[in-house]
Amino acid sequence: MLPNFLKQRAYLTPNRTALVFKDGILTFVELYKQVKETAQKLAGRGMQPEDTAAVLLKNRPQTVVILHALQQLRVRTLFLNHRLTTVEMQYQLQDSGAKWLITEKDFQEKSVVLKEKVQVIQRETLAALPSADYEEAAEFTLDDVCSIMYTSGTTGKPKGVLQTYGNHWWSAAGSALNLGLREEDVWLCAVPLFHISGFSILMRSVFYGMPVYLMEKFNEKEAVKLLQSGCITIMSVVANTLQRILNELGEKSLHPNVRCMLLGGGPAPRPLLEACAEKQISVFQSYGMTETSSQIVTLAPEDSLRKIGSAGKPLFPAQIHIVSEGRECKPFEHGEIAVKGPNVTIGYLNRPDANEKSFRDGWFFTGDIGYLDDEGFLYVMDRRSDLIISGGENIYPAEVEEVLLAHPDILEAGVVGMEDEKWGQVPAAFIVTKKEVLESELQAFCEVRLAKYKIPKKFFTVSDLPRNASNKLMRRKLLEWLPS
Amino acid sequence: MLPNFLKQRAYLTPNRTALVFKDGILTFVELYKQVKETAQKLAGRGMQPEDTAAVLLKNRPQTVVILHALQQLRVRTLFLNHRLTTVEMQYQLQDSGAKWLITEKDFQEKSVVLKEKVQVIQRETLAALPSADYEEAAEFTLDDVCSIMYTSGTTGKPKGVLQTYGNHWWSAAGSALNLGLREEDVWLCAVPLFHISGFSILMRSVFYGMPVYLMEKFNEKEAVKLLQSGCITIMSVVANTLQRILNELGEKSLHPNVRCMLLGGGPAPRPLLEACAEKQISVFQSYGMTETSSQIVTLAPEDSLRKIGSAGKPLFPAQIHIVSEGRECKPFEHGEIAVKGPNVTIGYLNRPDANEKSFRDGWFFTGDIGYLDDEGFLYVMDRRSDLIISGGENIYPAEVEEVLLAHPDILEAGVVGMEDEKWGQVPAAFIVTKKEVLESELQAFCEVRLAKYKIPKKFFTVSDLPRNASNKLMRRKLLEWLPS
Repeated sequence: MLPNFLKQRAYLTPNRTALVFKDGILTFVELYKQVKETAQKLAGRGMQPEDTAAVLLKNRPQTVVILHALQQLRVRTLFLNHRLTTVEMQYQLQDSGAKWLITEKDFQEKSVVLKEKVQVIQRETLAALPSADYEEAAEFTLDDVCSIMYTSGTTGKPKGVLQTYGNHWWSAAGSALNLGLREEDVWLCAVPLFHISGFSILMRSVFYGMPVYLMEKFNEKEAVKLLQSGCITIMSVVANTLQRILNELGEKSLHPNVRCMLLGGGPAPRPLLEACAEKQISVFQSYGMTETSSQIVTLAPEDSLRKIGSAGKPLFPAQIHIVSEGRECKPFEHGEIAVKGPNVTIGYLNRPDANEKSFRDGWFFTGDIGYLDDEGFLYVMDRRSDLIISGGENIYPAEVEEVLLAHPDILEAGVVGMEDEKWGQVPAAFIVTKKEVLESELQAFCEVRLAKYKIPKKFFTVSDLPRNASNKLMRRKLLEWLPS
Repeated sequence: MLPNFLKQRAYLTPNRTALVFKDGILTFVELYKQVKETAQKLAGRGMQPEDTAAVLLKNRPQTVVILHALQQLRVRTLFLNHRLTTVEMQYQLQDSGAKWLITEKDFQEKSVVLKEKVQVIQRETLAALPSADYEEAAEFTLDDVCSIMYTSGTTGKPKGVLQTYGNHWWSAAGSALNLGLREEDVWLCAVPLFHISGFSILMRSVFYGMPVYLMEKFNEKEAVKLLQSGCITIMSVVANTLQRILNELGEKSLHPNVRCMLLGGGPAPRPLLEACAEKQISVFQSYGMTETSSQIVTLAPEDSLRKIGSAGKPLFPAQIHIVSEGRECKPFEHGEIAVKGPNVTIGYLNRPDANEKSFRDGWFFTGDIGYLDDEGFLYVMDRRSDLIISGGENIYPAEVEEVLLAHPDILEAGVVGMEDEKWGQVPAAFIVTKKEVLESELQAFCEVRLAKYKIPKKFFTVSDLPRNASNKLMRRKLLEWLPS
């Protein structure tokens, strides 16, 4: 049990800035006031503790207010990635048992479809709703579920990752012990709030009493302007956005107040890191996933060139093991990365099968392959199940393959990541078909079922897919089939 | 469960400085190595997990090593205040069931007496002991008891406060969220390690990866030299030591690197705070006790003059209530201060009576009287049971009275604090006697039973003590009887 997070923060440091955005700022006491009003509106609409509410909202101040209001109501928040199709969203709504969807005009086309499954609340009309009192929790129970984010894996169906209040607390505490915490810290959030990378910034803000500068969408011009202004000290980036910042920066430098660029969402290419070192940009590389409520392993800048390619060492409350054939690996020996710590998810929603597979003796088996060097630095070799990382978004081949296999003329499908200058990787599909299928038809077929970034950019029709003795698809082999 | 604290720290940042002292430094990996060697020696001597070991050791690097070695062995550490008499120490050894006493030559006179009760290990001869392997814990259980420190209260007998590993973790985490945490932080420890004020610095060092500069004993000349050198950023002080630092400083200032003087052990007089403000010394006043594993309420410097006399607001994970006649008080209404939080002790050892009295609905009732203002700032009016604070040491009148009443010629006794220029307060006793007793005899009687700082500096013989209707001693009245 800890004190009600936002209430405690508003009590402790009411006049500190909580949120900075294009048109203004909100202090913690102002934020808390708006949050309480919004919670009353949602209660007036009928929302109850333990309900699950999906949010399909852009990075806006009002989104922050709504996210906190859901916590005040003790409602579980299901975060919907904007780029998903309505078919994908419907699956998540149904699987999570969401009763509500809070959304906005920008997603009207989608919400028209989704309203069959859930009660839709438009953020624009929230203020007009009747208010009702709700019981304000004096304390938050750390084991209660705060948020649900879907992620896929080796099987095709996405799984809902349960993140507790405690997961978020420990993640933020571990991060502060590692990155330090300064009175003047301001964290630039230009990553989506529906990703753990974005939402974790909001949670840190409350625990630290730290302002978040919220950008609606990443934009290198605006980001560089902010990073040069002196008003930002930390920013969360992925390799792609960091590269775009560097390109935009040209010969110029960042303001010395910028003390940390926290890099997540996959490995960074060496030239990028070297260019940052040259410009004295402190890059903290990290390894983490939705299941670890953001970073769990981080590489300090002082080691970033000495240990190039490494993701670093765990946060203080966390541990990593490399396991192969049931035993712990020696240094440099490759195996599956297992993690443990109070920031690790309590499990997947409604998926006893996946939980049994992923959790053993208190350790969470990530499915990623890696090794530790002789100093205990982690090197991640392959993201789990041949994960494709495209501009910071994770794409799970199995999920794309499942969609392709639903096409009446496709017999087999194998999806892999193809190098791409802009996005790092994009998906490509190898298919075995009954008869010739037009690429335009496949595109159209995918468009209603898969978020755009997941749709294969290339289709290769082949006669067979490479399979091992037990008939398992060998995606690694497919990589060799890609045109170079 | 968290990873084995020191092992994790030595893994994460092996080459960072852990300890600085007069003659050298120790990095975390060096500290860990020495700790493991010492743990082997202690294991060789027969120490077992769950044992209780008392330590009677000065602030020295080897003491730090021993304290960590006891944690590695999962032995509970009983901290003995150096100034206690052997009679007082014997009580604590017996009550805690301590099997061991680790001490050094400087306390030889005392250990000669104490060795009847426990097995004594001399730190000077530790290295010569045979080594034995011990099972190194991969993780520390947060609910396990780490340390025991005795404190008195309204009843005469001191009570052993149980501090868990979790208490220390949460205290350190809460403090970091409040004071911030910087890579360049170095904490000057010139308070005794047997007090929670000192021991908590060691624990923070491990969680933060932060160097501690250890002084054997507070000395204003040496402290000022350090505080002017730029190598110290934070220091724990009490009003008395802060005043002595100011006096020593004269017209000069502290180095700007000193960002926080954490003031505990009772309220600070206004002129002292004003003098610090004038010299731009950032004083963080705080309220805490052995039972809260150090500070639980802290006043930020920006509020220190606006809210003069206040102890501040709770740390993020903690809460305070003011309770009177079973209900929560309104702002400015006086009542008993109750606290709650994961840094609060799990209870007193072997004292179900005291635990029942002090804990209600998860709240710990401190016995201190205070109020909250309309912004929620805490003001402490009276420390519990008319606590006397003398140079940062707590003196409990009931404990001193109990000793006096053991004298064959004393019928009644009442002890109160008397103002003292050097120590803030010193104890004074009012006694009702059978026949005339010489003050020198009383002094001698106390000397074997009470630490020197607890012995009344004045004895006033009176015919009656002020008592209320239920015959309870009214110590408040006695204050009026003191010569002005």
